[in-house]
Amino acid sequence: MRTVDPVKQAAKRRRILEAAASCFAEMRFQGTRTADICKRAGMSPGNLFHYFPSKHAIIVALIESEGVQTAAYLERLVAEEDAIGALFTLIDAVVEPAADPEYAGLALDTAAAAQRDEGIAAVVARNDRRLRAGIADLLRRAAAAGRIDAGPAADGAATRIAARIDGIFARPATDPNFAPREQAPMLRLLLTRFPRVEQP
Amino acid sequence: MRTVDPVKQAAKRRRILEAAASCFAEMRFQGTRTADICKRAGMSPGNLFHYFPSKHAIIVALIESEGVQTAAYLERLVAEEDAIGALFTLIDAVVEPAADPEYAGLALDTAAAAQRDEGIAAVVARNDRRLRAGIADLLRRAAAAGRIDAGPAADGAATRIAARIDGIFARPATDPNFAPREQAPMLRLLLTRFPRVEQP
Repeated sequence: MRTVDPVKQAAKRRRILEAAASCFAEMRFQGTRTADICKRAGMSPGNLFHYFPSKHAIIVALIESEGVQTAAYLERLVAEEDAIGALFTLIDAVVEPAADPEYAGLALDTAAAAQRDEGIAAVVARNDRRLRAGIADLLRRAAAAGRIDAGPAADGAATRIAARIDGIFARPATDPNFAPREQAPMLRLLLTRFPRVEQP
Repeated sequence: MRTVDPVKQAAKRRRILEAAASCFAEMRFQGTRTADICKRAGMSPGNLFHYFPSKHAIIVALIESEGVQTAAYLERLVAEEDAIGALFTLIDAVVEPAADPEYAGLALDTAAAAQRDEGIAAVVARNDRRLRAGIADLLRRAAAAGRIDAGPAADGAATRIAARIDGIFARPATDPNFAPREQAPMLRLLLTRFPRVEQP
């Protein structure tokens, strides 16, 4: 009887996802064929299909794994003593990939794909809930520490911050002079004033 | 000798663009074939190719015509006596299509396409320059009327408002509970405070 080594299996899954991420960054979702991913992963189609039945399944798994990484990152941030400092760190961590055309392009593709595919939409929405929950958590902790006024409005403020992050990712495609990193100081400033200003 | 009637030509171009817009709304850029557009426009491929050599040319012309409409709309707004009122009208005019999944989906597709196609990027960037110039104009006029403090910071504020608009268009794909129309009161409130708050 053939036994399955779960460690080896996980490593192979990871190898496929890494190959896929590199193909998607270069050729986007539409332009990438499963054959390209096989080639880059150094695997036969039969072997790859043993792990993922389709390109769609690879896309979903990749977005899921991105969500898991973001969740782990947020968990570390939320555990930090200084909630405002953690929010500032988060802003820096967000504008960095937004300034990377390949990453920002994939983020746009992912949003566009979520808009027309329920499976992708579900994973994207779950990742987004985690992100907003993390931001709201930090806002509440900053409010409890008397640094901002957010308290009861934290969920709404987190949603608006998420919308701003979306805008920072989308804007470079439209305005070639838009520099995501330059938005960081303004976002930091607004983060501390926002909830107060936006109190109804 | 065959003569060309420019009025008839313009009407045919418009008919093709309308058919294309309806196909793209339903099947997006990637899912639409030129044959679908021909069918919906009631034209033969030969006839259609006389006006547009490719689907790409139709996409570019459609984004151009959207830009022309936006420019005409902005021109009317900028001519209004009450600049703040005109800005509020603009916000309402923006959240409405953002709440329409088909339109918002096409906006995401357009941004994603601009990210990888120089021809589309050039038209998208020109439309965006017009939008930002219109917003900056209105902010400067509102400042001149003593309604806001924007004056010298109007261009930067217009860019940030444009980024917020991008976020409002992108967010529904990620967060199914996000309601663009609900953002209007907050945007109106921020528009009047923003430039002041954001003064460095």
